[in-house]
Amino acid sequence: MLAEIIAVGSEMLTPHRQDTNSLYLTAGLNDLGVSVAFKTIVGDNRHHLTGAIIIALHRADIVVLSGGLGPTEDDLTRECVAEALSLELHTDPTTLLEIQKRFVARRMAMPPNNARQAMVLEGAELLQNPNGSAPGQWLDTVIPGPDGKPVRKVVILLPGPPKELKPLFDTACKPRLAASLPPRFLAKRLLRMALIPESQVDARTAPIYQLFPDVETTILAGSGEIQLHFLCVKPTAEEAEARVNEVAELVEREMGDDIFSSHGESLEEIVVLMLGLRDLKLAVAESCTGGLLSERLSSVVNASRNFHGGAVVYASEQKVNLCGVPAELIEEKGAVSVEVARALAEGIRERCCCSLGLSITGIAGPALTEGPDAGKPVGLVYIGLADGEDTQVKQFQIPGDRERVRLWATMHAMEMLRHTLL
Amino acid sequence: MLAEIIAVGSEMLTPHRQDTNSLYLTAGLNDLGVSVAFKTIVGDNRHHLTGAIIIALHRADIVVLSGGLGPTEDDLTRECVAEALSLELHTDPTTLLEIQKRFVARRMAMPPNNARQAMVLEGAELLQNPNGSAPGQWLDTVIPGPDGKPVRKVVILLPGPPKELKPLFDTACKPRLAASLPPRFLAKRLLRMALIPESQVDARTAPIYQLFPDVETTILAGSGEIQLHFLCVKPTAEEAEARVNEVAELVEREMGDDIFSSHGESLEEIVVLMLGLRDLKLAVAESCTGGLLSERLSSVVNASRNFHGGAVVYASEQKVNLCGVPAELIEEKGAVSVEVARALAEGIRERCCCSLGLSITGIAGPALTEGPDAGKPVGLVYIGLADGEDTQVKQFQIPGDRERVRLWATMHAMEMLRHTLL
Repeated sequence: MLAEIIAVGSEMLTPHRQDTNSLYLTAGLNDLGVSVAFKTIVGDNRHHLTGAIIIALHRADIVVLSGGLGPTEDDLTRECVAEALSLELHTDPTTLLEIQKRFVARRMAMPPNNARQAMVLEGAELLQNPNGSAPGQWLDTVIPGPDGKPVRKVVILLPGPPKELKPLFDTACKPRLAASLPPRFLAKRLLRMALIPESQVDARTAPIYQLFPDVETTILAGSGEIQLHFLCVKPTAEEAEARVNEVAELVEREMGDDIFSSHGESLEEIVVLMLGLRDLKLAVAESCTGGLLSERLSSVVNASRNFHGGAVVYASEQKVNLCGVPAELIEEKGAVSVEVARALAEGIRERCCCSLGLSITGIAGPALTEGPDAGKPVGLVYIGLADGEDTQVKQFQIPGDRERVRLWATMHAMEMLRHTLL
Repeated sequence: MLAEIIAVGSEMLTPHRQDTNSLYLTAGLNDLGVSVAFKTIVGDNRHHLTGAIIIALHRADIVVLSGGLGPTEDDLTRECVAEALSLELHTDPTTLLEIQKRFVARRMAMPPNNARQAMVLEGAELLQNPNGSAPGQWLDTVIPGPDGKPVRKVVILLPGPPKELKPLFDTACKPRLAASLPPRFLAKRLLRMALIPESQVDARTAPIYQLFPDVETTILAGSGEIQLHFLCVKPTAEEAEARVNEVAELVEREMGDDIFSSHGESLEEIVVLMLGLRDLKLAVAESCTGGLLSERLSSVVNASRNFHGGAVVYASEQKVNLCGVPAELIEEKGAVSVEVARALAEGIRERCCCSLGLSITGIAGPALTEGPDAGKPVGLVYIGLADGEDTQVKQFQIPGDRERVRLWATMHAMEMLRHTLL
């Protein structure tokens, strides 16, 4: 079964807006065993949209349209599907009444255009949308195939706003699709690794996952991370589950501690979890990352029990004021040095009365032309970790621009902490 | 002139990857006066891709393909364009030699497949790609139109990686397109506002921009910000410039200080700039935002002269340790209170020896069930600003989830600072 997703809306043909609904729809369709073969983005133009729908009906079994169900003249999806399939549109009295009631409740007169939202395609089922005024529509129909024989097509019309589209697709469309497709049991696993080249992960894991032709393996790389997605479909849920676990365990054995997450959790979630299990309190002192590490750690719900905060010591004076680093040390060695990384980690640990102090100091770019750090290369980063007895400092040279250096520095810091906690 | 962009690659038909090149290509095409009417995403499938190219040739004047130019069997763009247009492919000896040289330089034998990257379409011009091994291709051709008369079509083949595609499009494609299109002079302006409802901006500005039918106005809302984009095309650059400036100035007069940026700068850039002009030093103390405000301010290049850093006081103890807030005050009023916001702003200002102290404390969610802040609503945020003489504290109730509360709190803090500096 092949699907095509058509995103309708002229704003998605500008440099400013992207179709994002299709990622969600694709995940849901894939779960049901349906592959997405085409995605089309088309503007609010009757001729273009009708043409795109006709094309989709000829090359896909399931056509999902998102957007164009609003009340304005620009909202053309209903009309264009009707035209493409030569179907009538009629007004659904219940839906019209619902729309009128909403206006009455707001003590407003309903503009005549809004009646368009009650128009339903001949033979279609209306899908109630509790989060908006435009209902979705489900049409299970047949059209003449290339050889003249009738071919079944499912056409789904969904509203564009994600908070309306997602629940409507999940609660109204997926069950209807599942009922008309062969039953399917799937299992997924996600392993995550940081700071390893994709080629190395592939070289070490391909000999394993290639032994599992019945498991679909996808390697994704980005933001300093490698993700290994496994997906398996079997006649029972147990068989599917057993199979993804089998491949995941072999890969885990091969990659060992390089895997930070064996069930999809983020690196910050894992670090906060490990701190919690060991009942440790962490404080951080960030220079070049300017708060990014704190921001990531504090984004974990309930992190505050174990991640306490710390200092953003962006200017050198603040390394002195907030972490008690001796000014002479910065003068002598530079703010980007083993010594200052050590003093920051120890200083913030002490000031915050925490079990652990983690520090980052580096050159995110541009390079400095004066002062004790002049001439140190962009991407040079020192990370310190103090536990009250011992302080380790590591040096990194991170390639890339300012944003990448900052991001990778936080990854290195969290990985250093995780490996120490292991 | 209408364009269609075809993004080629099966990974963009998964739930994990999005086509992003098309946003960049759209901006460049729009600058030349070309509208994008369709975007298609298609996998590495010969039949699907050839079909999509034939459709695009019939509904667009310019067809831009990205991806599918690599050396593997899955890279089909060249072959499919040739098939769609019934053109031959031949090997370009210079390109082949270049590819062979690269392998020689790495002391490797060239796998036979790599010769595919030297295949050029009959009548096409090769576009040298200094950032990768696959050259682009430019084909200016004619096909029979619906009435049998020849119609001109431009077909552009570009490599998929953005760092190869972008320079190739800018340096090789835009000049070629510009040469074959009527000369066009355009000017743009971007005004940015924060924390105002889009409907209010539209109600106040529409009566102005509607007087400028020759200026294309786009309102974009997101991340707590409203952007007003103006674009104007005229026979000379001066006329276009004058016209966008005219509408922008009238809108600026109407919206006044609500506009934080009159030439597209970000709110953090403006705040850092204003601090610099007044030679002020800022330190911040963040609780619920966990470092996000610092991260945003420090993302501005050379911010450290005026943004000094500060404290992330995520746990209550750290409000005491790092900002000197009396523990009894937190006990009595709760960490999320006017009093603690004031003490944090004053405390961080003093500890960091800065001119200004800015604090954020709030409930990002979930709500607390015990302690002095129990029962305070999610989204309640206090922001404090101390200048050594006076400390102002404002209360906000920010709707939405954890991530939104954090983001909007940083916007409110920067806006409060900006309005004070004005």
